[in-house]
This record gives sequence, C-alpha cells and structure tokens, in this order.
Amino acid sequence: MTYEVDYELTDDDENVHHVWDNSLDPLVTVEPGEVVRFECRDALDGQVGPDSDAEDLATASFDPVHPLTGPVAVEGAEPGDVLAVELLDFEHKGWGFTGYMPGEMGLGLLPEEFEEAGLHVWELEEDVAHFVNGIEVPLDMFPGIIGVAPGEDGEHDTLPPRDTGGNMDVKHMTKGSTVYLPVETEGALFSTADCHAAQGDGEVCVTGIEAPMFVTARFDVLTDKSIEQPQLKTTGPFTPTGSDEPMYATTGIADDLMEATKKAVRHMIDHLETERDLTRGEAYILCSAAVDLKISEVVDAPNWTVTAYLPDSIFPE
Amino acid sequence: MTYEVDYELTDDDENVHHVWDNSLDPLVTVEPGEVVRFECRDALDGQVGPDSDAEDLATASFDPVHPLTGPVAVEGAEPGDVLAVELLDFEHKGWGFTGYMPGEMGLGLLPEEFEEAGLHVWELEEDVAHFVNGIEVPLDMFPGIIGVAPGEDGEHDTLPPRDTGGNMDVKHMTKGSTVYLPVETEGALFSTADCHAAQGDGEVCVTGIEAPMFVTARFDVLTDKSIEQPQLKTTGPFTPTGSDEPMYATTGIADDLMEATKKAVRHMIDHLETERDLTRGEAYILCSAAVDLKISEVVDAPNWTVTAYLPDSIFPE
Repeated sequence: MTYEVDYELTDDDENVHHVWDNSLDPLVTVEPGEVVRFECRDALDGQVGPDSDAEDLATASFDPVHPLTGPVAVEGAEPGDVLAVELLDFEHKGWGFTGYMPGEMGLGLLPEEFEEAGLHVWELEEDVAHFVNGIEVPLDMFPGIIGVAPGEDGEHDTLPPRDTGGNMDVKHMTKGSTVYLPVETEGALFSTADCHAAQGDGEVCVTGIEAPMFVTARFDVLTDKSIEQPQLKTTGPFTPTGSDEPMYATTGIADDLMEATKKAVRHMIDHLETERDLTRGEAYILCSAAVDLKISEVVDAPNWTVTAYLPDSIFPE
Repeated sequence: MTYEVDYELTDDDENVHHVWDNSLDPLVTVEPGEVVRFECRDALDGQVGPDSDAEDLATASFDPVHPLTGPVAVEGAEPGDVLAVELLDFEHKGWGFTGYMPGEMGLGLLPEEFEEAGLHVWELEEDVAHFVNGIEVPLDMFPGIIGVAPGEDGEHDTLPPRDTGGNMDVKHMTKGSTVYLPVETEGALFSTADCHAAQGDGEVCVTGIEAPMFVTARFDVLTDKSIEQPQLKTTGPFTPTGSDEPMYATTGIADDLMEATKKAVRHMIDHLETERDLTRGEAYILCSAAVDLKISEVVDAPNWTVTAYLPDSIFPE
C-alpha cells in the first residue's frame, strides 16, 4: 500500500468540531484519490491521561464528546453518491484507556452492575496492549467514528451512529479496509475520531481501548452505487491471531435481543471472575476490549441466542 | 481424537421424541467418559427430501418438529451440576436443504419480504456444499439442537432455546468443541437434533443447511462448576478458510437491536442482488447459510450497530 499524504490535519482547536452539522465549513476540499492524514484526539478530549485514575473518568464532562477532526470535503460528491474511504494507516501515541462510568450515568451495557467507575490505562506497544495478570490484547486499530454530515440541517449529537455513519464502532474498519458511506450533503463533509487500539464486538463497557491516534485515509466518490447505511470491505482480523484458535464462549438466551446480549456478557464476566481470577470490573473492561459478540440465531421464536467469544490466546501460557 | 463408540442410537421411532420433558424414560444410561453415536433426522422429519421443491416446504407440517434423538441419561448427573458434551464427530448423508417459509407464517427474520416459500437443496460433498452460480459453502457441521431436559415438569416446545440449551443454533459447536449444559434433572437427559452442514451466525431464514446426520459425543459430569445457561469451548472455524480473509460487510443501525439486525440483513440481500447477481430469495438463503452477524456496539445510545459479514471465498474466482 504505497501512498503520499496530500493533506495533514492536526488536532488543533481550529480543526476539531463536536457535532455533525452540514453547515460547517470544510477545512480542505480534496480531489478523489487524494490522501489525508488526520490527527485525532481521544474520545474524552484529554480528560483522562496516562496518569489518570478512575476518579478522573467518573468526573469527566461529556460536553467535549466527541472531538471530531474535520470536516473534509471531497470534490464532486453529491447527495445519493457513495464516499469510499480507504483506511491506509493508523499510528497510536503509546497509551490508551478503557473504563466504565458510575452506574447512575446509565452508560454501557450493564450500568446496574457497576456503581463505581473503573479504569485501566494501557501501555501500547507496537502490536499489543498490556492488561493485568499478564494478559496481552493484540492491537487492531480503527476509528470508532467515521462518517459524513447528515443531510438534515442542524446540529446532531455524535454519540449515536446514524445512516451517514459516525460512532459505529465496527472493529473491522482496520488498516486495508474500505468503508462506504452514503453521501447526503454536497462534498460529503467527512470527519473521523474516537480511535480504538482494539475493541471487542459490542464495546460493552462503552469504551474500547480509547487512544489518541493518527488516521490516514484515501477518498473516492462512487456515483454508480447507492446505499442506505454504511458498508465495508475488510480482511479482519476475525481472531486475535488471524487464524482459528481456541475460544471460550458463553451464551445469552432470552426473548429480547438486548436482554440476551446482557446475559451473554454477564455470564462471561462470571467466567472471567471464577476461571481467570479477575475482579468483575476488570472482567467488564476486558469484555469491552477483547470479547466478541455474535448473534447465533434470531429466528427460534420466542428466544434468541447471543454468544460472547473470549480468545485463549490473550492469556499468558 | 481417538474414541470407541459405546452406544449407537438409530433414528428409529422408538429413539425419537418431539418435546423436552423430564419424565421421558432414557434410552440408555451412560457412565461419564462413555461415547454415544446418535443418528439424527433432519429438522422437518423427512418432509423435505433431495428431490423436493419449495411447495413441499410451504406445505410442511410443524407437528413433528423437531425430532430429537434421545434422551440419554448420564450416571451421577444431579441438578446444579454441569454436563460436558465433547463433540467428537459428524457424518452427513450427502444432502441438505435451506429454505424460507411463506411470509404469512411469520417465521425467519424477514417474513414480510418473502410472500412465497423458497428452497435450495444442496449436494453435500466431503468439505463443501454447492449453491447456485458456482458458489461453494464450506461445511462446518454442528447440531442446531443440543440440550438437556428442563427442571420444570411438563412438555416444552423444541423451537425456542432455553436455559438448558436446545435449539441454540450456535454454529461454533463444531467437531472438537465441548458444550457445557446446566443440569436440572437427575441424569441430565440429553438429546440432540436439527443438524446443520453449515450456517451463518443468525440463521436468518430459519433454516441452516438442514441435513440428516450422525453425531458422536462423549459425556462428562462436572460437579464443581455451576452455570445458568450453556457455555462452550471451540476452535471455530471463525472464517470459511480458517484464517483472515476478505469479507464484504453491511451495517444495520437502529435504536432497536432486532431492527438493526433486520437492516443489516436487508442491506446484505440488496448487495447480493446487485453485486452478485442473485435473486432476493437466493440471497436470503445464502445469508442464512453463510453470512455471520456480529454486534458491533450496543452502547452508543440510542442507536446500536449490527454488522453482517459475507466471505469472498465462497464465490468462484
């Protein structure tokens, strides 16, 4: 994958915005085929740092969430077109964090089970992130937020993903992948943010391995394709080692898909507590960073099955 | 994996039952460590055969669904214990089917989109199943139903999975995996059925590659472990080739997890229709047999992201 960077966008204030809004002026307008390198702040905009503890997370303000780098306009992109974003490279800055907020805030999949906030600050090496007990999570870097401006006028919150993408948290939007976004505004107005050094499918405690990062992407406009919501091409990784490997899995079975999801994660937290000697808070964090949620069946009425997969390979021998 | 079969259970009427019921007499009582080979009928109990068309599926009766082979009692299994079921081997009988029912029956993930029934009968070779247009789906055989009798007295429908397992349709319960089931009845009373030659996570059109099959399993009783719902150890396969490989994925984004799931599958059907030259019915069937559903995030309120993954490797070069 050879490329030359045509534009560099730092994470200085003038390059950062905090809402989706199709009236924002683009920082640059690029031609199809051009490459932009975005510097992205972490999701909490610096309120948690390498030396933080859980209290910093518990008292963090959500006003600056999320700091998005952009927008970038792409020449020729019109509503109804598709913006193709080829993800060329990611570079982290050596650290990241995963944590959960106090339950009363209602964030994350299991707020009722965790009254107090919890935080793990990860040291990021080139390929792995270090957890407790010798556990190492391989890095699979990707932007949690990748999107374009909605066609609907006004300011739109960055927390929920929407038809034009945004906070999708699709962990397979990794290096080498191409993300397809439906264009709703002239020029598309692309922004990215909220990078994760790794994340399990589900991102259950509401944070992946949150990390400030550089994102390098090439843009193209497809006028002969039309999509309703984002799509992507990827080569994974679908397992931490890139090949079939031993996993331990818990099921969650219930007549509501969200409840089945909660059960699968609760059972995995129980498993990590009893079999892997983690506290429930550590287990919740590890689920968010390294456990993948699959929908096994959504058709055996009235009960659905969700399954949570924990790779053996992240544990020391 | 060397083993000797201690008991053979054919799929003759006297070895088949159609409800979960803890008052059923066991066909055999095995010691922990012993191996049973179960002959399992297909889920529709022979109403669809190698020469069937969609009309046979549309007019099939659900009275005999599912024909379960068993039950097998395991010596020493008491309520509160865990039954460990090591899946040693599967052998199909050369054919299988995947289909969807007429929409008015309300079965499957998208009944409103398919008024008429559709059926594909697959020729099963040793490693692959053949679809239309040269598409080959690798075989990953597993029993859709694997479970023990519920502690609650009476007859229980086999369609929904429950705390004691049953119709879980977890595609990773493959050869070499061990499934852990919570025991609620003395002797556990294990049965299996509804084998699939392959299935995508989700089983969206309500059938995997339904195939009569032999299932060989070894039983053990764990008295020092307690679980609320089934768990498993597995080595996948997590991709058709067993390694990272190119996939095309569609997202479904909505404020309800089931609706997000439906959107992801609808978008994949659109993709298969426009990019891979399949009819919508063929696309629905292929989703059920070979497309995996993952929960990308369940925390970015109020919208959740479900992603459907289609492997490139099943298509001809």
